[in-house]
Amino acid sequence: MHGILQVCCPDQRGLVAKISQFVHQWGGNIIHADHHLDEGLFLSRLEWELAGFQLSPSATRTEFTPIAQSISAQWSYHTRNESPKLAIFVGKQSHCLWDLLWRQRAGELPGEITLIISNHQDCAPIAEQFQIPFYYITITNKSQVEAEQLKLIKTHDIQLIVLAKYMQILSQDFIDQCPPMINIHHSFLPAFPGANPYHRAHQRGVKIIGATAHYVTPDLDAGPIIEQDIVRVSHRHTVADLVRQGRDVERRVLAQAVRWHLEHRVLVYHNKTVVFT
Amino acid sequence: MHGILQVCCPDQRGLVAKISQFVHQWGGNIIHADHHLDEGLFLSRLEWELAGFQLSPSATRTEFTPIAQSISAQWSYHTRNESPKLAIFVGKQSHCLWDLLWRQRAGELPGEITLIISNHQDCAPIAEQFQIPFYYITITNKSQVEAEQLKLIKTHDIQLIVLAKYMQILSQDFIDQCPPMINIHHSFLPAFPGANPYHRAHQRGVKIIGATAHYVTPDLDAGPIIEQDIVRVSHRHTVADLVRQGRDVERRVLAQAVRWHLEHRVLVYHNKTVVFT
Amino acid sequence: MHGILQVCCPDQRGLVAKISQFVHQWGGNIIHADHHLDEGLFLSRLEWELAGFQLSPSATRTEFTPIAQSISAQWSYHTRNESPKLAIFVGKQSHCLWDLLWRQRAGELPGEITLIISNHQDCAPIAEQFQIPFYYITITNKSQVEAEQLKLIKTHDIQLIVLAKYMQILSQDFIDQCPPMINIHHSFLPAFPGANPYHRAHQRGVKIIGATAHYVTPDLDAGPIIEQDIVRVSHRHTVADLVRQGRDVERRVLAQAVRWHLEHRVLVYHNKTVVFT
Amino acid sequence: MHGILQVCCPDQRGLVAKISQFVHQWGGNIIHADHHLDEGLFLSRLEWELAGFQLSPSATRTEFTPIAQSISAQWSYHTRNESPKLAIFVGKQSHCLWDLLWRQRAGELPGEITLIISNHQDCAPIAEQFQIPFYYITITNKSQVEAEQLKLIKTHDIQLIVLAKYMQILSQDFIDQCPPMINIHHSFLPAFPGANPYHRAHQRGVKIIGATAHYVTPDLDAGPIIEQDIVRVSHRHTVADLVRQGRDVERRVLAQAVRWHLEHRVLVYHNKTVVFT
Repeated sequence: MHGILQVCCPDQRGLVAKISQFVHQWGGNIIHADHHLDEGLFLSRLEWELAGFQLSPSATRTEFTPIAQSISAQWSYHTRNESPKLAIFVGKQSHCLWDLLWRQRAGELPGEITLIISNHQDCAPIAEQFQIPFYYITITNKSQVEAEQLKLIKTHDIQLIVLAKYMQILSQDFIDQCPPMINIHHSFLPAFPGANPYHRAHQRGVKIIGATAHYVTPDLDAGPIIEQDIVRVSHRHTVADLVRQGRDVERRVLAQAVRWHLEHRVLVYHNKTVVFT
Repeated sequence: MHGILQVCCPDQRGLVAKISQFVHQWGGNIIHADHHLDEGLFLSRLEWELAGFQLSPSATRTEFTPIAQSISAQWSYHTRNESPKLAIFVGKQSHCLWDLLWRQRAGELPGEITLIISNHQDCAPIAEQFQIPFYYITITNKSQVEAEQLKLIKTHDIQLIVLAKYMQILSQDFIDQCPPMINIHHSFLPAFPGANPYHRAHQRGVKIIGATAHYVTPDLDAGPIIEQDIVRVSHRHTVADLVRQGRDVERRVLAQAVRWHLEHRVLVYHNKTVVFT
Repeated sequence: MHGILQVCCPDQRGLVAKISQFVHQWGGNIIHADHHLDEGLFLSRLEWELAGFQLSPSATRTEFTPIAQSISAQWSYHTRNESPKLAIFVGKQSHCLWDLLWRQRAGELPGEITLIISNHQDCAPIAEQFQIPFYYITITNKSQVEAEQLKLIKTHDIQLIVLAKYMQILSQDFIDQCPPMINIHHSFLPAFPGANPYHRAHQRGVKIIGATAHYVTPDLDAGPIIEQDIVRVSHRHTVADLVRQGRDVERRVLAQAVRWHLEHRVLVYHNKTVVFT
Repeated sequence: MHGILQVCCPDQRGLVAKISQFVHQWGGNIIHADHHLDEGLFLSRLEWELAGFQLSPSATRTEFTPIAQSISAQWSYHTRNESPKLAIFVGKQSHCLWDLLWRQRAGELPGEITLIISNHQDCAPIAEQFQIPFYYITITNKSQVEAEQLKLIKTHDIQLIVLAKYMQILSQDFIDQCPPMINIHHSFLPAFPGANPYHRAHQRGVKIIGATAHYVTPDLDAGPIIEQDIVRVSHRHTVADLVRQGRDVERRVLAQAVRWHLEHRVLVYHNKTVVFT
């Protein structure tokens, strides 16, 4: 079992020494540590063995709070045996949902998929197959829908929302009240933002298509990028081929981003991310 | 020695039979042939051994003309022992120029680099090192500069212009009078068109950067794409690192596009390309 | 609907003309054609619209037979509306099975998954979930097991066997009596053939791991390669991480190979393949 | 200006605290730090600003020695303004030599290319072009040749040898007396070790070729791997095409490995490497 500390603060002398000394004085043995400096910000992730570490998670938080205050840090502390609860939002397309469910079962995602929310019934059989509660909420009145969704999220103590091809624009108010949300964008941002990217990519004759996983912010498709990947295409590929290949890269990129988030490897700053891999 | 025929025409029955019959009746043995259909257009490339083929290049063109007319084709015929003349336009940055010169010497580019044109003197020593005539034409009056350039291109019978980081906008009139031009765009189009792409990519926190080689059209950075490639980056890369990695991918992509063009593998239609590789 | 003709024969003059003339004279409009020459062998794939083509599949075979004989060709003819029957052989690991089942449902694989055969019961629930017959055949006496498997394959008229992590060595006699078989090798052949490739890759400190899909021949792991792909790894990846990343690349590579086979894009010669993509 | 400390020692509690405290107490501000644990070994790299750091390089070494002894560490300390001297060994092929020379000129390699040694005269004009001393040492008596080479290396205080397609086997005795040596292997190790890898890859019909940069050990082609990369190939590529594409990936991989070494990012342990990028 490991403890994982993420720290983000203004750069100042002695930060690594101070933080690693904290871990050491309570008996923690650091197994990975990574520190980065960008635009005057210090970003850090430490992972240590809990065997021999004298503090419980809550005691760790209590003891680290004055240190964090002294360096004006934003920070979080987690242990590897936590299993945070996820909600997956999905539309008609099932490929990312399938992939996340399969990976969770295979032990690749350290979290629990607690519920699936959709504005379509297409994916209900998949939810049933995996015995995950499926909430079909029709889009009639957007604010009412969001209120229902929010109630589910709060009731089930959801800690991460994954937009697995949900295809709906969310209100700023909703986003503000939600836990972190990861979206998969069906394109290699910032190229082809918005609708029908594969048609537009085919029209433009590009030789590469891609996908982007990012945190959701009110500014559509412009949130911090977590992961991107691409696949090569040629004139021999039809739009249908691009869509098919896009599905492959979308599910791969989304799963990677979700795993990194759940392993507390991602820090956000200045609308971009550090991913400590 | 090989003959290479490129054909582009409205789709109609019997095209492959008609064209391959032409090659066969004059004794040509086809070694590669590739045909593609898109949006009602038939696009084709045939390559055959000249050993046993009874027609000279000019006789081939004469004999094929009536066939081409009967199918309303745009077409070209080349042999592999031609060595078309290239002009390289370059600015201050030398990495693409170096790479093209080295590859030409190594026998990778079936053409002759006849002259180098620049609006800066930075690359003059490289031209000298490779003993290629270097024309330094200062940008004072754009139309005068273009007139001088055009004179050189006509005088030397240049058949391909390579914009190897030339960084100047060309007039429509100039483009219209020139042979085909290939440009390397320092970005993964259509993301980050225009200036300072690496700064903007770093600012945006992208996880992948790329480069695009395309034919030049009057519509800046929107000509038919020949080749694209990418390289992965992370938060650990500074803008300087992105620039360095960008150089690598730029020179690779540009050289690939130039070689494919010189091997008569690229057909242009509807502002995109078929690359018969 | 399309007709697809694959031809492999000793090179001789006029082959493209002869074959395309055959398609044309019966009213077929070629939409893709690709010809390749290697070591004196001519390899060709033609795809044409069946609308307007005057021959049924059986008549096509009858009419093409004398042509094929005149050029000493090995050949096959298929139409796109066939849906060949597949058997999937699987062991304990389910990732490739899942992926193939999902892709088949999503319409990515033009075939029917008729049965699943395994020497373990681990994947039985997945077969049930997708309502595919699952045959659990324990390995006690190898020749008896193979006899049972062969009976199933013959009874159900299986046309392609996919070894989706089956992990058993098959007898030459069994292979000889079976339809084509595609195997996924959990390594980037020819590196790390045999067992435990990920442990050995980790031990060796490689920076890239891969997977290979190939046709099965009696010579273990040495059959014609259809597709390979890789993923980058670093010192930060444990053996468990390599196994997880290996699963991703394995399922991607296997699905690609199976699709290409089902689309009649793969020709085998001299223990290697041409893949007309 | 930065100081860079590499440390490798048996794992024990408090290492990060102890090392970072050392940097902090002398006024160093850490800008990058990366720590890794594998098989009971702690591997670490710290980089800090020299502005404000109170110790000269030699004083740093003096002060850190007792700390290193107390943790049984192998370690090194360097500053970014050092410019270590390189010797490049080369055979007949020039592509890697060209690339390294160009990159050094472009400021991509933080070192000085002091001399070029070859058993052929082919690359002499390139050395002249870049005004680097070129030593042509014919292979008559191997031990005599190695003695001459060793004398040059000692005389010029060479700190890194790059085997840029040198194609000769070195004696264990020679290797033992030399500074670190980086070799580029014309293959994706461990596939196709030894001679003619591209012919053998073509023969085997692989879909991917690659290159490997590694430190030289007496065990041929089995030293610690620093970097690998690949390029996709198809049936359309001849052996000559593979050789050409191999050149591209070889020079890219070699340059990357050399840069990482010169930036003190590579630690060797158990015949493999950690690359702190």
